[in-house]
Amino acid sequence: MKVGIIGLGLIGGSMAIDLKRKGFAEEVLGVEAEPVNMAAAEKIGLVDRVVSFEECVDISDVVVLAVPVGAAVRMLPQVLDRYAAMAEDVRAGKVVMDVCSTKEHLARSVKYHPMRRHYVASHPMAGTEYSGPWAAMPGLFDGHACIICDSEESAPKAVRTVENLYGCLNMRTIYMNASNHDVHTAYVSHISHVTSFALALTVLDKEKDEKHIFDLASGGFSSTVRLAKSSPDMWTPILSQNRENVLHVMDTYIEKMNAFREAIADGDEDKVRSLIEEANRIRRIIR
Amino acid sequence: MKVGIIGLGLIGGSMAIDLKRKGFAEEVLGVEAEPVNMAAAEKIGLVDRVVSFEECVDISDVVVLAVPVGAAVRMLPQVLDRYAAMAEDVRAGKVVMDVCSTKEHLARSVKYHPMRRHYVASHPMAGTEYSGPWAAMPGLFDGHACIICDSEESAPKAVRTVENLYGCLNMRTIYMNASNHDVHTAYVSHISHVTSFALALTVLDKEKDEKHIFDLASGGFSSTVRLAKSSPDMWTPILSQNRENVLHVMDTYIEKMNAFREAIADGDEDKVRSLIEEANRIRRIIR
Repeated sequence: MKVGIIGLGLIGGSMAIDLKRKGFAEEVLGVEAEPVNMAAAEKIGLVDRVVSFEECVDISDVVVLAVPVGAAVRMLPQVLDRYAAMAEDVRAGKVVMDVCSTKEHLARSVKYHPMRRHYVASHPMAGTEYSGPWAAMPGLFDGHACIICDSEESAPKAVRTVENLYGCLNMRTIYMNASNHDVHTAYVSHISHVTSFALALTVLDKEKDEKHIFDLASGGFSSTVRLAKSSPDMWTPILSQNRENVLHVMDTYIEKMNAFREAIADGDEDKVRSLIEEANRIRRIIR
Repeated sequence: MKVGIIGLGLIGGSMAIDLKRKGFAEEVLGVEAEPVNMAAAEKIGLVDRVVSFEECVDISDVVVLAVPVGAAVRMLPQVLDRYAAMAEDVRAGKVVMDVCSTKEHLARSVKYHPMRRHYVASHPMAGTEYSGPWAAMPGLFDGHACIICDSEESAPKAVRTVENLYGCLNMRTIYMNASNHDVHTAYVSHISHVTSFALALTVLDKEKDEKHIFDLASGGFSSTVRLAKSSPDMWTPILSQNRENVLHVMDTYIEKMNAFREAIADGDEDKVRSLIEEANRIRRIIR
């Protein structure tokens, strides 16, 4: 099978490595708009060949849109338009999938497209705080969960192809509609990025002497602030496209912070203790 | 040298392991008020002998107060009182040190104690989100920073003993007064615990279906929320004793969250991007 990956960053690049290594793809084609990243991807050898967007869509059995979600919303209809222009036997079996962290805008962008059934919406829940082709690594997806959205809108054969692809990356598949996906990812992924960004801004603002941050930062601080290294190219469109859900969770979060603030300000140790004990319940859920 | 460790939790237990293993202590005595923890510490073999508080102070060359800071504030004057009652040649060279995360209350509690110079205030910046003797591990302190506070208030010989102890644990020593210590730790340690607690409360509140948290939580969420597992016994007194500094940092943090909230609510992508870019500067400081 020929797999074309559009966007050779952390996710696209890591997928390129493992799909080739594990034999899912005989050939991996890559598309990369950013010249520096393209040169890097070629140098590292992430893909077999760098091609144009058009060539990638025409040749590949599976096209993976691994670009920030703003760009994906623009590109997805273009891919389907190109499928529409192909002879029926040429486009049969062709699949385009995305790997984006928000789903409703994408779903809406092709809802009535005649080639909609060639598209499978998916979100592999794996990543690091680094980005670009240099960040790509084997095994990134191994053992993590992957969400397939609105699978009834896709051709069963297209869904099976994507399931096989994720199976080969050793991911567990979960099914959800796009709207639920965006609600849940706001809770467990988007909010943790926002809280990390805010933490970094707070500490950078307050600790003018950066030497102290470096000296005093123990493992706890580093792990809490880690996500604040995440790329603005990726996260600006996510926070924008998932605005309603993210704002809703942020409001709850700000309420909880204020409850903590009040308990500490009042010197109410019983209340502080009970808030911490309640927070500790996360132990049952997260290793 | 005989080292007596009061409180055989994560920090005390880990210190017991390495001070014995690396030869700093010929004998490690342990004091543990909690019967379950005491039985566990004996079973694991963290210390050579479990003794009473009094025996520990009388026999040990170095006493390490490794209890939550509220208990340490009560115990520290008791240790110094016991030194005061000893013959001068018996108490000569005896040192009591603490390992607590806040320092001003402790410093105040013995400021005018005639035996003050036997006490060295210190804070090893290492830990995990787990607690109790089961959490103790070799190498916990290795390569981390350790703060010694108000060293001019301690006898030079006592400071050297504590420096040697931390040197043996392979820690870098930083010197600071108690008041600066509490300001800086509020910025880089206490606030990250509060933000994690609030994140856990938010997600637990919102995600009624815990299965979804488990399924969707990728590495990013887990690392951001990790500190929310931290013990209320340890953190209630820290947040209480460092109240002023913690509230100050929380206020800045809440401001930053509100700035983010406003930019997202306004759909101001340029502002969101510039906040993320600013937060990214943490890259220069934290690996």
